[in-house]
Amino acid sequence: MTAGPSKRGLGLLVLGVLMISPSAKSQDQRPLNLMPIPSSVQIGTGRLLVDSSFSVALNGYTEPRLDRAVERFLRQLSRQTGIPLAVKPNVTTKAVLVVHTDHASKEIQELSEDESYILEITANSAKLSAATPLGTLHGLQTFLQIVEVSPEGFAAAVVTINDKPRFPWRGLMIDSARHFVPLDVLRRNIDGLEAVKMNVFHWHLSENQGFRVESKKFPKLHEMGSDGLYYTQDDIHDLIEYARDRGIRVVPEFDVPGHSTAWFVGYPELSSGPGPYEIERKWGVFDPAFDPTNERTYKFLDQFIGEMAKLFPDHFFHVGGDEVNGKQWDANTKIQEFIKAHDLKNNEGLQSYFNKRLEPIVSKHGKSMVGWDEVLDPTLPKDIVIQSWRGPDALATAAKQGFRGILSNGYYLDLGWSAARHYAVDPLSGAAANLSPDEKARILGGESCMWAEYINPENIDSRIWPRNAVIAERLWSPQEVTDVASLHTRMEILGERLEWLGLTHKSYHRQMLQRIAGPSTPVEFAALTTLASVVEPVKDYTREETAATEPTSATPLNRVVDAVPLESAAARHFGELIDKFIAASCHDSAAAARLRAQLSVWRENDANLEPLAQRSFLLKAVSPTSQDLSTLAVIGLAALDFIARGQRAPDDWKAQQLVLLQQIEKPKGQLLLMPAPSVQKLVEAASTGGACWSSN
Amino acid sequence: MTAGPSKRGLGLLVLGVLMISPSAKSQDQRPLNLMPIPSSVQIGTGRLLVDSSFSVALNGYTEPRLDRAVERFLRQLSRQTGIPLAVKPNVTTKAVLVVHTDHASKEIQELSEDESYILEITANSAKLSAATPLGTLHGLQTFLQIVEVSPEGFAAAVVTINDKPRFPWRGLMIDSARHFVPLDVLRRNIDGLEAVKMNVFHWHLSENQGFRVESKKFPKLHEMGSDGLYYTQDDIHDLIEYARDRGIRVVPEFDVPGHSTAWFVGYPELSSGPGPYEIERKWGVFDPAFDPTNERTYKFLDQFIGEMAKLFPDHFFHVGGDEVNGKQWDANTKIQEFIKAHDLKNNEGLQSYFNKRLEPIVSKHGKSMVGWDEVLDPTLPKDIVIQSWRGPDALATAAKQGFRGILSNGYYLDLGWSAARHYAVDPLSGAAANLSPDEKARILGGESCMWAEYINPENIDSRIWPRNAVIAERLWSPQEVTDVASLHTRMEILGERLEWLGLTHKSYHRQMLQRIAGPSTPVEFAALTTLASVVEPVKDYTREETAATEPTSATPLNRVVDAVPLESAAARHFGELIDKFIAASCHDSAAAARLRAQLSVWRENDANLEPLAQRSFLLKAVSPTSQDLSTLAVIGLAALDFIARGQRAPDDWKAQQLVLLQQIEKPKGQLLLMPAPSVQKLVEAASTGGACWSSN
Repeated sequence: MTAGPSKRGLGLLVLGVLMISPSAKSQDQRPLNLMPIPSSVQIGTGRLLVDSSFSVALNGYTEPRLDRAVERFLRQLSRQTGIPLAVKPNVTTKAVLVVHTDHASKEIQELSEDESYILEITANSAKLSAATPLGTLHGLQTFLQIVEVSPEGFAAAVVTINDKPRFPWRGLMIDSARHFVPLDVLRRNIDGLEAVKMNVFHWHLSENQGFRVESKKFPKLHEMGSDGLYYTQDDIHDLIEYARDRGIRVVPEFDVPGHSTAWFVGYPELSSGPGPYEIERKWGVFDPAFDPTNERTYKFLDQFIGEMAKLFPDHFFHVGGDEVNGKQWDANTKIQEFIKAHDLKNNEGLQSYFNKRLEPIVSKHGKSMVGWDEVLDPTLPKDIVIQSWRGPDALATAAKQGFRGILSNGYYLDLGWSAARHYAVDPLSGAAANLSPDEKARILGGESCMWAEYINPENIDSRIWPRNAVIAERLWSPQEVTDVASLHTRMEILGERLEWLGLTHKSYHRQMLQRIAGPSTPVEFAALTTLASVVEPVKDYTREETAATEPTSATPLNRVVDAVPLESAAARHFGELIDKFIAASCHDSAAAARLRAQLSVWRENDANLEPLAQRSFLLKAVSPTSQDLSTLAVIGLAALDFIARGQRAPDDWKAQQLVLLQQIEKPKGQLLLMPAPSVQKLVEAASTGGACWSSN
Repeated sequence: MTAGPSKRGLGLLVLGVLMISPSAKSQDQRPLNLMPIPSSVQIGTGRLLVDSSFSVALNGYTEPRLDRAVERFLRQLSRQTGIPLAVKPNVTTKAVLVVHTDHASKEIQELSEDESYILEITANSAKLSAATPLGTLHGLQTFLQIVEVSPEGFAAAVVTINDKPRFPWRGLMIDSARHFVPLDVLRRNIDGLEAVKMNVFHWHLSENQGFRVESKKFPKLHEMGSDGLYYTQDDIHDLIEYARDRGIRVVPEFDVPGHSTAWFVGYPELSSGPGPYEIERKWGVFDPAFDPTNERTYKFLDQFIGEMAKLFPDHFFHVGGDEVNGKQWDANTKIQEFIKAHDLKNNEGLQSYFNKRLEPIVSKHGKSMVGWDEVLDPTLPKDIVIQSWRGPDALATAAKQGFRGILSNGYYLDLGWSAARHYAVDPLSGAAANLSPDEKARILGGESCMWAEYINPENIDSRIWPRNAVIAERLWSPQEVTDVASLHTRMEILGERLEWLGLTHKSYHRQMLQRIAGPSTPVEFAALTTLASVVEPVKDYTREETAATEPTSATPLNRVVDAVPLESAAARHFGELIDKFIAASCHDSAAAARLRAQLSVWRENDANLEPLAQRSFLLKAVSPTSQDLSTLAVIGLAALDFIARGQRAPDDWKAQQLVLLQQIEKPKGQLLLMPAPSVQKLVEAASTGGACWSSN
């Protein structure tokens, strides 16, 4: 009844034409808010109403996973609309949405399977067609994003979408070793991955600070290396099934030979130093490393990887390989003699030796080895995959040598970069842009990385979402999709939707602020909300440097810096308004009034927050930033006053303000006051030579 | 080492003196925010800091339930402070909080067990002492409420609390029959009950709209009567254990002979009519009823209650008994002949006959029968308990006849009453106030009731909380505790805290508004939030009457009326401000400015909301209310203008405004605009003879 994707020739469908949708509008001029943007979108006229009679039928190839997918889809549709729906696939009557899947995907999901789908929505019905269940899963997510509230009810725009991913490897890495991440938190984030069509969950499972997997062969690994916080093998089976149901591969990472203190608590004999060892509580790069010169190391790893290779069915197995500082190797005479005896030159040579011993073990157990940049060695088999924290140039080098690679440089979610900055990072940029087609094909995609020094179950979602969706779009959508304004709009809408999946990136923010405030009046709490809305944590690796006391895994993550999003939407909106105002040569009086209103609120904010700061130690710590916000507002209002009077601000005033702004722009309490650079633009515009006067 | 409650004689402790705490202040003049208020609170000087070294030791009588309670307590303390804590009870070293329990409570929790506890907090340590684990559980909850953020860190005030409940039966009834309530939703609400020291979960399990329990004896009950939405016996075992861990009894209710359509879908032969039956989808009182003249009815109920009596260990068993409309009995010649033959006079006589047959069955299976007012019959054994939806006078009548009773009249959470109104309802008021001590002792307490026509997993928490805490306080705290201002303050603080338990009464509100709005600008969404903050659903039983189409169990609960809290805090705050302003003869210029600011926001609100109302059918429906809010604000501002000019508003102006206000006060879209009566007060104050001029 329904043709497969290869056989369709419907009038609406524009095959082979790249139709980018951000500016596409439906009948009533509302754009579709899809994320990631599909490779082709053709918008028609009208809407398909979604009410309690909505139903789904599966035809073509079916399997229990597809039944579950439809059930999940209907549950989610019900949740996002509030309409009670029967959640079983419809088998007997004519369904509103008919789903056709051509054939099975691989039992163990593989790289480069067909993930494409075609979704056609008319005013009366909808058809989703895909070659494999993977495409079907993606198409269902697209449908969920199309359904919005309308003047007539909940409805899906009439549209034809022909979609497929740009890269085959689109992942998120979660470090559940530095801070343990409970299974329910992982599950809701995997739901998030499904929503944005990512297909790899890279699970970082061992670290200096914890070994998180039950090993039946070597039980002292989890018994002594985890404080009791580990995943049982049953947990892991379940999570892998959960991910597979969502079209997501699970790639485990066991980091060797460095980042390995937690292994040595139970098995000190594998290390290069004397021991004994305790689970590491601090952050950073530490000395303990496996002893590559000891045959017991390889015997152990052979048995261990054998056990884990069975537990994790994916074809790829990540061995880490990053950041060995070499201190234990330097201090060990036997090891240094080994380096000389085998002509390995130095510690890098020793690590290379280690990797050459490791790779056949991984391979013997049926897996392709993945490692961070450091494992790259031209003499290793071309089967390995390089995950690059160094950047596209490193990937290009690897690709030229015949290695496959995935990009993570530029996708570290913990560094607090803006969505736009992540968005600009392309796996095929830099030296990679100039590769041959064959070489380019070796760049498989990328992975965002959620390193876990400053996350816990409470704030992890807010560190991943919604920015992870930006990276997901970069890896799925055509390279030409780069409109940042559209990105911001769609990211905010998606951010709201993701809470329906149980992600808590928005709801927890408010609760954490409540905790920080304690009992408070509405005015006091509003002042805290306002302050929290315009600050961001310090960026990159400055948090350790700016800490009052050295942070550890026991440090509470209950401060303002832990509660605020990594990107301030309010500051971004304010910045856009300032830019628009200045671009109009400061002549837009409505914009001026809005700026003035915003700045007035900020000016009064510190006074409103002050009583709370007297009561809560967590707010006393941000008092300087709160005062800065008021000062910043005073500066901004003064600049607007000059502009309103048509009077250029004098040089000495400008100089004074810039000194103040320089103070304000310094991080305090590990927070950055984000509107400061925009106010600085306003000061400059108001002053001699500024944009306000240049066109006069 | 720690003395039990009976042996203590510490200097700080003021036994036998009723110290009501709402106005009690600690060192820095912050009141304790306890709910329910304990029977005696003695505040000292200083604070006990709570940091990551916090620990708890159990001594005296111990049992696994107490270990679990301490673990749960520490988990909760960790959640509300954000401080990582080791969650196991401390057995080896000196703990910060030492808990002493004297002896076990009953294996099956009984009415009138000792629930008292003494909590003594000093600047260095804390002791909790209780006769039984039930008191210990309550004391732990009190400790959690005492911990607040302070200038030095999280801390508990130095205090001695000597506490016990006023009534032994303090319950919440949840109707999980009209709408099925999933187990996780029940569990989080049971956590809420523990937090406010309620000790009964009354589980309404059967209705015309659904039979929700797996019966192994009569499987057609759940198989045909539940749409697949029922609790398995394992589910029920687990929930009872969950509740017992929290000191909460589970009393099941199977409503007979009325409210029973769902039973008859599988067993039509038990009914008084011809059948066949389908699960009822509408709301109201329906005709189907058991046939009291048929011996099969009693044989069936004997076997069924026998099965359920084993499943639910509590000593009480609720048989409903309410609202039999008698239509099936009237229409059945055989039944009418039976009434004549047995001299039962009428249908009431027949129901009385039914109850007299039912009671020995319940009793035979080891239970005391509980029923709604209608089951009261002086000839029944005194062992039964009357649950009164009629009121304290009905309870008093029952008590005089020797029956025990619990009050639910005035505690129906679904009717949308204000917290203050619920608070004013006392089980020992009205005729019950004049009972003898023995008779008063028969009034066991009360139960709030959450009837389920308009709830689902999404909004149920917001219908129960925080108002249920008010009823919990009425039933726990001394009768003299009646300060409504204190109640409101503490209720709002508790409301925030309850979200740490996983209750979603606040977080879901925002998500439901997001769904209603669809993609929106911050200004648009703020306008919706503002409107939503000042409306309440229509009260009592008017929702059916005002519905555009007859609601059923399939009706989506996704409208504004479903998303807004049942009591508007913003309207209450506004009303308080108006009252204060008028009480000051309208001379408080700061209050006038605040009123003006608030009214100005409301005046502009409709214009900001309008674009959303154009896009969302769910907002189009509330446009009239939104326009009313603007009109209301214009009226209020005009009244303030008169007052500011020192000019009495003329009579004809007043008359016009009152006409407008009358229109505004009419419910629209099933919503009430709550600030309207306060604005009316302002209009009256501004006009001839108003409070603004009376003292001039």
